[in-house]
Amino acid sequence: MKKFEIITETDARVLPRGDSVMLARRGHITPLAQDTLRERRITVVHEGMTSADEVSLAPKADVRTVAIASDHTGVVLPEGAEPVAYPDVASSVADAVVPREADAGIVIDGAGIGSAIAANKVDGVRAAMATSETIARYSREHNGTNVLTLGATLVRQEEARVIVTTWLTTPMREPRYIRRLAKIRDLERRGS
Amino acid sequence: MKKFEIITETDARVLPRGDSVMLARRGHITPLAQDTLRERRITVVHEGMTSADEVSLAPKADVRTVAIASDHTGVVLPEGAEPVAYPDVASSVADAVVPREADAGIVIDGAGIGSAIAANKVDGVRAAMATSETIARYSREHNGTNVLTLGATLVRQEEARVIVTTWLTTPMREPRYIRRLAKIRDLERRGS
Repeated sequence: MKKFEIITETDARVLPRGDSVMLARRGHITPLAQDTLRERRITVVHEGMTSADEVSLAPKADVRTVAIASDHTGVVLPEGAEPVAYPDVASSVADAVVPREADAGIVIDGAGIGSAIAANKVDGVRAAMATSETIARYSREHNGTNVLTLGATLVRQEEARVIVTTWLTTPMREPRYIRRLAKIRDLERRGS
Repeated sequence: MKKFEIITETDARVLPRGDSVMLARRGHITPLAQDTLRERRITVVHEGMTSADEVSLAPKADVRTVAIASDHTGVVLPEGAEPVAYPDVASSVADAVVPREADAGIVIDGAGIGSAIAANKVDGVRAAMATSETIARYSREHNGTNVLTLGATLVRQEEARVIVTTWLTTPMREPRYIRRLAKIRDLERRGS
């Protein structure tokens, strides 16, 4: 991770979109650079407050590829097609997101509840069901979710569009939130 | 598990509340008994459709004890009290629910999202965040959740009351839903 004493507008312009950089202790970001960093979804880690290991847990801020799957409730099935169980659908998305083949994943089932439970069983996944734009935003900002689940019977198409757009474009930036992701990982490692 | 060829109103009256019983192949339940079984939260498993092992995964229908915990957003803290991180709070509730010290668990944090993620990391927990009565009911009926999470900033007190009451009093009864819980357990066993 690149380290800065001061981040200027010029620095912010040339950093790769979605990158993470470290600001040195007592470092400084110019006001104009703040806006550019936000617009380019660059995460600034404050030295001594968040470790590089913790930052690696945050989801990719600049989402380019999304793994999407649905059970039989979210799609119009051709005649004779077999229904699919939500845990199978959720785990197929999880298996694309965890090795970072996809930057993020979206799972659709009847209510979105079961898929969120199942996806969270997979180490490295943080999944949330969102029924509103607020929940979608919080789930990224505060919890760094890398899988979103939607309920086909709970969310209308227009709402789903807003939820998905918000979720895909909200980065996780706050060091104090990022640090808590390590505690979730500790629970994964603890096992049963 | 007790097995019946026919379940009458008299049988239904004497079965322990919240019990599970098996109905033999081509067995029969009288209409009056149906109502009593529902009222007494008795789960009827159809022979050959759901195994006793699968039924053991369903949450207790008659909830008597609830483990409750909250992070600093859900309670008024005395001066000088330390804030608590949601993964710690969620895991303390999970640790009471999994060994069945409590029949069910409730976790409160700012949005309820993080606690649901963290609680689901614990084997044997199925947690959902509920922002409405419908989600609370679905999460029990369809997904057999044993942990409910609530967002202190997203749900008003009156709504929370309805959500909690619905969640605590909705049993999981459908064999086809219960069977999917075994698939969630498979994901837990798979590990990372």
